[in-house]
Amino acid sequence: MKREIRVGLIGHKFMGKAHSHALHDVAFFFDLEAVPVMHTLCGIGPDVAATAARYGWRNWTESWEAVVANPEIDAVAVCTPGNTHRAIAAAAARAGKHVLCEKPLALNAAESGEMLAAARQSGVRHMVNFNYRRLPAVNLAKQLIEEGRLGTLYTFRATYYQDWPLDPAFPFLWRMDKSVAGAGSMADKGSHIVDLARFLVGDFAEVAATSEIFVKQRLEGGVPREVTTDDAAAFVARFHNGALGVFATSRMAAGHKNALGFEVNGSRGSVIFDLERLNELQVYFTSDPREAQGFRTVMVTQSEHKYIQSWWPPGHIIGWEHTFVHQYYEFLNAIAAGEGGSPSFEDGHRAQQVLDAIERAAAEKRWVAPGEAEA
Amino acid sequence: MKREIRVGLIGHKFMGKAHSHALHDVAFFFDLEAVPVMHTLCGIGPDVAATAARYGWRNWTESWEAVVANPEIDAVAVCTPGNTHRAIAAAAARAGKHVLCEKPLALNAAESGEMLAAARQSGVRHMVNFNYRRLPAVNLAKQLIEEGRLGTLYTFRATYYQDWPLDPAFPFLWRMDKSVAGAGSMADKGSHIVDLARFLVGDFAEVAATSEIFVKQRLEGGVPREVTTDDAAAFVARFHNGALGVFATSRMAAGHKNALGFEVNGSRGSVIFDLERLNELQVYFTSDPREAQGFRTVMVTQSEHKYIQSWWPPGHIIGWEHTFVHQYYEFLNAIAAGEGGSPSFEDGHRAQQVLDAIERAAAEKRWVAPGEAEA
Amino acid sequence: MKREIRVGLIGHKFMGKAHSHALHDVAFFFDLEAVPVMHTLCGIGPDVAATAARYGWRNWTESWEAVVANPEIDAVAVCTPGNTHRAIAAAAARAGKHVLCEKPLALNAAESGEMLAAARQSGVRHMVNFNYRRLPAVNLAKQLIEEGRLGTLYTFRATYYQDWPLDPAFPFLWRMDKSVAGAGSMADKGSHIVDLARFLVGDFAEVAATSEIFVKQRLEGGVPREVTTDDAAAFVARFHNGALGVFATSRMAAGHKNALGFEVNGSRGSVIFDLERLNELQVYFTSDPREAQGFRTVMVTQSEHKYIQSWWPPGHIIGWEHTFVHQYYEFLNAIAAGEGGSPSFEDGHRAQQVLDAIERAAAEKRWVAPGEAEA
Amino acid sequence: MKREIRVGLIGHKFMGKAHSHALHDVAFFFDLEAVPVMHTLCGIGPDVAATAARYGWRNWTESWEAVVANPEIDAVAVCTPGNTHRAIAAAAARAGKHVLCEKPLALNAAESGEMLAAARQSGVRHMVNFNYRRLPAVNLAKQLIEEGRLGTLYTFRATYYQDWPLDPAFPFLWRMDKSVAGAGSMADKGSHIVDLARFLVGDFAEVAATSEIFVKQRLEGGVPREVTTDDAAAFVARFHNGALGVFATSRMAAGHKNALGFEVNGSRGSVIFDLERLNELQVYFTSDPREAQGFRTVMVTQSEHKYIQSWWPPGHIIGWEHTFVHQYYEFLNAIAAGEGGSPSFEDGHRAQQVLDAIERAAAEKRWVAPGEAEA
Repeated sequence: MKREIRVGLIGHKFMGKAHSHALHDVAFFFDLEAVPVMHTLCGIGPDVAATAARYGWRNWTESWEAVVANPEIDAVAVCTPGNTHRAIAAAAARAGKHVLCEKPLALNAAESGEMLAAARQSGVRHMVNFNYRRLPAVNLAKQLIEEGRLGTLYTFRATYYQDWPLDPAFPFLWRMDKSVAGAGSMADKGSHIVDLARFLVGDFAEVAATSEIFVKQRLEGGVPREVTTDDAAAFVARFHNGALGVFATSRMAAGHKNALGFEVNGSRGSVIFDLERLNELQVYFTSDPREAQGFRTVMVTQSEHKYIQSWWPPGHIIGWEHTFVHQYYEFLNAIAAGEGGSPSFEDGHRAQQVLDAIERAAAEKRWVAPGEAEA
Repeated sequence: MKREIRVGLIGHKFMGKAHSHALHDVAFFFDLEAVPVMHTLCGIGPDVAATAARYGWRNWTESWEAVVANPEIDAVAVCTPGNTHRAIAAAAARAGKHVLCEKPLALNAAESGEMLAAARQSGVRHMVNFNYRRLPAVNLAKQLIEEGRLGTLYTFRATYYQDWPLDPAFPFLWRMDKSVAGAGSMADKGSHIVDLARFLVGDFAEVAATSEIFVKQRLEGGVPREVTTDDAAAFVARFHNGALGVFATSRMAAGHKNALGFEVNGSRGSVIFDLERLNELQVYFTSDPREAQGFRTVMVTQSEHKYIQSWWPPGHIIGWEHTFVHQYYEFLNAIAAGEGGSPSFEDGHRAQQVLDAIERAAAEKRWVAPGEAEA
Repeated sequence: MKREIRVGLIGHKFMGKAHSHALHDVAFFFDLEAVPVMHTLCGIGPDVAATAARYGWRNWTESWEAVVANPEIDAVAVCTPGNTHRAIAAAAARAGKHVLCEKPLALNAAESGEMLAAARQSGVRHMVNFNYRRLPAVNLAKQLIEEGRLGTLYTFRATYYQDWPLDPAFPFLWRMDKSVAGAGSMADKGSHIVDLARFLVGDFAEVAATSEIFVKQRLEGGVPREVTTDDAAAFVARFHNGALGVFATSRMAAGHKNALGFEVNGSRGSVIFDLERLNELQVYFTSDPREAQGFRTVMVTQSEHKYIQSWWPPGHIIGWEHTFVHQYYEFLNAIAAGEGGSPSFEDGHRAQQVLDAIERAAAEKRWVAPGEAEA
Repeated sequence: MKREIRVGLIGHKFMGKAHSHALHDVAFFFDLEAVPVMHTLCGIGPDVAATAARYGWRNWTESWEAVVANPEIDAVAVCTPGNTHRAIAAAAARAGKHVLCEKPLALNAAESGEMLAAARQSGVRHMVNFNYRRLPAVNLAKQLIEEGRLGTLYTFRATYYQDWPLDPAFPFLWRMDKSVAGAGSMADKGSHIVDLARFLVGDFAEVAATSEIFVKQRLEGGVPREVTTDDAAAFVARFHNGALGVFATSRMAAGHKNALGFEVNGSRGSVIFDLERLNELQVYFTSDPREAQGFRTVMVTQSEHKYIQSWWPPGHIIGWEHTFVHQYYEFLNAIAAGEGGSPSFEDGHRAQQVLDAIERAAAEKRWVAPGEAEA
């Protein structure tokens, strides 16, 4: 019998669905050292019981404290709005639960630092769900970089564009409230591209930034309410290794639904990625024969590519949700191994330091080094 | 309590995995009138029991006859090589089981006609798994055609290219044996594009065709064996509605992994599709303002698009496997409704008539009308 | 002083403009053994004199016979409708003029054979303006094939789609009259892809074909007139080297303006080309490392690429018209050398034999070998 | 007889060739109020006479002062390195010559301001060759913006990537010397995207920036020399109208040959452009029906598109060089009209102010408003 990991999941909306499905599917496809048990789903609202039943959870509750306190539960996943992450994740860690927390890890680095400390102190496995690290194409980019096949890294650029609230009549949501969400596109979307930059290029030295709220009021239940998180942000960065970075986020970029794109340029090659075509990576090598150089569209669906062997034959593409399956594969394996688990709360905390620096840089109109306030 | 449909699945390899997963996932995402029970997995080999356990089947067996004879089983899915479809599917239908059979439906139209007759006689639901009809993008194409937004259809072209046995050292497989597989790329790949042509354009009037085996011998256990199914085929067609079609299939097309592509051109617009980017449909309308006409890349991931509401927000792409989930959604709903179910064995039989005509046209070097031999 | 070649150009419309401009530009960019003199422009209509003046012709006339008879003229370019090619080109050749004739070379192989014989007998240089052989990207494809980098060729596919007369209200033109144009899209567009197939893959063994006229009547000066040339055609082919080919042409393919596309698949690689992105060639090699295989988009704008050194730095793209400049570069060099000149009337004649075979195959609904009638 | 404009061209290298060809071709394709005469080519080196002869110049000289002083000459084009623009262009203007000057207009805004003053004082036509304003696709973007079809503009992003000196063994060039070139990629490439931002979005309010020299020494005649202009730069901007901008330039971006790309996002739509596919514009409208929204690839080759009517039928693409022909069309028409001419030295000066602000922002690590030093 394999070891079982009894999971409690806090949050039953969009992310709750994605996490539930990953738990539902991971053992179907992957060989695991420890298998998950869908123990308890926690959410608030009249639909929690039905949702739990549908997704295959054994129990449900409206109390996250009950999940954290339940001795039957080994691991907790946190899928709630950002302003609750610190309390839930830290409590879970202190209660000895392994924790997988949604991104961005917290509202600010003070919170994420506390979460990291709590997790370290209790010795649990701790991961932040920067799920795009789990894309086969991103792993191919990482591999090429680590093997030196792009050479010395010079420049990085990334955008994360969506357009869901483009219509000014789109209503006020919690993501537009600074006290709940922390920041807008800069945090919600920016955290992903900041993490990918850290994963692929390295740590940030300093940033300059700006942001804007284009639609300043929206209706909530028919009542106008001030939007306090940014609709779009733009920032430039210098990395410790000398590379330059340029970043743009927007939730008001007409025509883009989930358009996370990045490019890495090095002395020996480049890669380009687009989340809406997540099974592909554009790759360029200077070592190709001169008459036949060009960006090649690699279908990252070969058995040579990370995670793919568990799925389908070449060319049979996977979807967005599969990143969550991969994340649980990593999380469960880390729990079984009693070590590792990446991206960890440390990665989440460092990304948070960058996000804080971006926000401060925009507010104070100056270059800011991540963590400067803490030094 | 919802009605339960107890399913028996014959075949536990690639297609068996895809069907099992669809059954595993369909109720997670979709509201069903009848929910599936994964009753029995049937396969041959030492790994059947382990596979059944992993995928969540309650029972397993090596005897398809036992599945067909089991009164507990309501529906049977057939995922075995083509030369066994007729026997299994017809027996299942005669035993009163609803049947979902892999494509192509049979080795030839005589067989598929028998299967269709058996299914009709017993009054069961019968479907053939032309799963690409279940793609949201293909449904968008269909919708545009049905609404007249492409106008009168003029031309259709389709290719289905793969390259898995491109290396002459790739070993002999059952798909290369005419007695087991019927035909090669012409049937295995061609059946999909023939079905899509029927779905989108209409019935075939006549075809001319040719095919070739490029690597004529391959090793099976170190022993050379003659390849008897085509590596590539090419055919042209006239449709009853006056449209022209051109088709190419190959399993030796370097660089293509699962490249099913098609284009439909009408008097008012065109659509272009590529399976390796299955969340997209290229759409052109002549009614756009002249200075801004062009093929638009529709991300077929909006809630307006068929099946998408059950998945994720816009831009969060789905994968190849999701077509199987959609197929079971249709199959289970048809069973619950006691009517319908498309594509049916009749579609499978008609596609088979076209495939037979293609094969005869290639062999006899003349134009052949589907079903001519039967007339 | 360099040798001068005094050119007479017959035809002053679209092709006349393209040829005039090529003569105007060729010595600006290319080192030539013999330089062109724009001696006489011949056309019919009130605008010939003005056109000649604008394009830089020294003289003009309405009589092609006068051009052919003029002893000052060394070379003649033929840019008139297809039904006049034979008379003009053969007369020019017999008068000792070097000839560059527009494509397709003639209305049928009887005519083109006579033209070839005339040119051979008089010993002049003779070329047919299959200008797409002059694309750097097509030359890169040719180079890769000749160097064996695509291996044994297996399959070829090509389409040539336009949509200029898509609107049924588009008026009757000479290209819709069989007696003037020979055939419709099958000849006008098909001749290009047939020639490219011959250039890249080799000679055709046999073809099967079909075609259709979708809009059967159009207005000419307000009066309905029967369209007698095809709107679209589709054909399959076997090549002498064992490769298979599939072809489609249409002037009614909504959304396509000048969309000549082809793909060549061999045992070691593939190439894909699209005329609307004529500076690019998609190239795939099986020899790339497995984790980084994919079609690479080669910008065919490097000094390593044919003709490019005379133009601009890498990435500075050239346009459609540049193919004509390249053609005159080849034509003038052949005249200076007293030998060579490709594609020659022989290429034009062989393409015509294929076109005739296609037309006969469509009319008689059977496979036809090019030149069979002549054997 | 049409008015003739006798042109003197200073500079006979890459830009000299592009300007010469534009003068050679403009009257062939365009109806002009005043036609150019290629009077004198000025350059330094043993090849000036031969170059002048080849390109069709009537005279040549090594003295730009002679060109400026020559009363026969009506207009002067300046194609020399940046550190000579001020002297030549200002002198030409003061001598009453109309001036078309290469970009960036000068080394800094002090110089460009002086040039603008000189041109204004003498009343001549003055233009800066931001030739990408002359692309049909860019004009379509401009038209859509001006007609309000993109709505309120929110975000702009642009990159200009090349890779010509990527190899550290690539030798030292004048473009790497700050005293001659002003800046590196930030000025050479950045000036184009700054101008396009001004053309499409509007004036810059302030910028933050950074830059880097990745290869700090290169060989000049075998001797190491310090590179003093940036290899890459990154900057963010706020526009006066509230839009945000993000920009990146590099001459060390592996795989990019001449990759100027930009995107404009507004409340009602977006456009995306790529110079390596300069005949295309990606266009998105929120007003499209919801099930068929997407970026459409407009082939900007219709007669409805600016400048195209003078070239070829739809789908017959033009090349990079054609922008220069269009620029001379505008320049000559402005001279004939005695007014207008855009982009003018004022545009060149304002772009220079932005470039100066970028450079200062990078050096001083703060936000800088263009023109702040002059206030």
